[in-house]
Amino acid sequence: MDYPKGIKRSTNGNYIRFDNRGMGLESDINITNQYYIDNNIAFIYKKPTPIQVTKVDYKNNSMIIKEGFFKEPSTTDYNGLYDGLYIDFEAKETTSKTSFPLSNIHKHQINHIRNVINHGGIGFLIVRFTHLNKNYILMGKDFIDYIDNNDRKSIPLEFFNSNGYLIEISYMPRLNYLKIIDNIIGGKNG
Amino acid sequence: MDYPKGIKRSTNGNYIRFDNRGMGLESDINITNQYYIDNNIAFIYKKPTPIQVTKVDYKNNSMIIKEGFFKEPSTTDYNGLYDGLYIDFEAKETTSKTSFPLSNIHKHQINHIRNVINHGGIGFLIVRFTHLNKNYILMGKDFIDYIDNNDRKSIPLEFFNSNGYLIEISYMPRLNYLKIIDNIIGGKNG
Repeated sequence: MDYPKGIKRSTNGNYIRFDNRGMGLESDINITNQYYIDNNIAFIYKKPTPIQVTKVDYKNNSMIIKEGFFKEPSTTDYNGLYDGLYIDFEAKETTSKTSFPLSNIHKHQINHIRNVINHGGIGFLIVRFTHLNKNYILMGKDFIDYIDNNDRKSIPLEFFNSNGYLIEISYMPRLNYLKIIDNIIGGKNG
Repeated sequence: MDYPKGIKRSTNGNYIRFDNRGMGLESDINITNQYYIDNNIAFIYKKPTPIQVTKVDYKNNSMIIKEGFFKEPSTTDYNGLYDGLYIDFEAKETTSKTSFPLSNIHKHQINHIRNVINHGGIGFLIVRFTHLNKNYILMGKDFIDYIDNNDRKSIPLEFFNSNGYLIEISYMPRLNYLKIIDNIIGGKNG
């Protein structure tokens, strides 16, 4: 089970507290997506983490969740609209310096990416090799080709170098992945 | 604040329990979307309700949410991919027999629908008048036109009759809204 990022052990007691100050790939993508929204470029959002709520209580007419559980998402984390195109991707970090472990992507997420590319959407992965300080786009077609033709439990870095596309970190937008997508599909800015 | 549907007061104590047995419009749409997925027609999902998790605990290596709050969604509830098209809609029920109260749709959701139609997506509302047993599609353009040209706090039923499209309830799929969308945009089945 993947839990959301940004969890911090509290100093007083057994509880764990969630820290909203973002870091890492997810935060970079969220900032980038907000830039796209603010500049009327694209409308791509992270889907909320699905939660099974089992108990709630009321306080001052507000509902407070008293018990709940994280559920596995049935799709990728990000989707939205860019210039008439349906955009859909999953973003993952790995600390490995040599390969991307496929255990990072659930079976139903792979299936979802397959459906997206079969039905005319733009599906891809954004993979960050944190220790190499490199961010790649791997298009859904190349990802599925790899899965279908390899028994390995990870995708080697060389596959990203040969088939993926590097995204440079910049000031604004932080991680301009749509520029890469434009180049790949020959879009208006490509 | 809108809270998710399907909440039931528990018999033992102050807690409220969530009941997963769906009813109403949301359930009909979810069943319909599952039919579309199972038949390889479209990949449209309800976004999970966003929740701010503030406390968690561990039990047998699983994370349990001990405190959390429902947040306002920043977009519409449903989006996805159909035949290369970006599909995006909000679904609402009203018990009124004469009009649809605009308080049902948040300002940022209206703004989102505006963005969707301005950027080449297919944005709309599905509105159920429960006491009339009628389900309408109101296309984003007509909805926004109404908002921009009226000071009323609700959309009268006549506006739906003149500008909306009735969706018939059927056995499978339950609420075949994509058939209507096909007719409207002149798609492959239109």
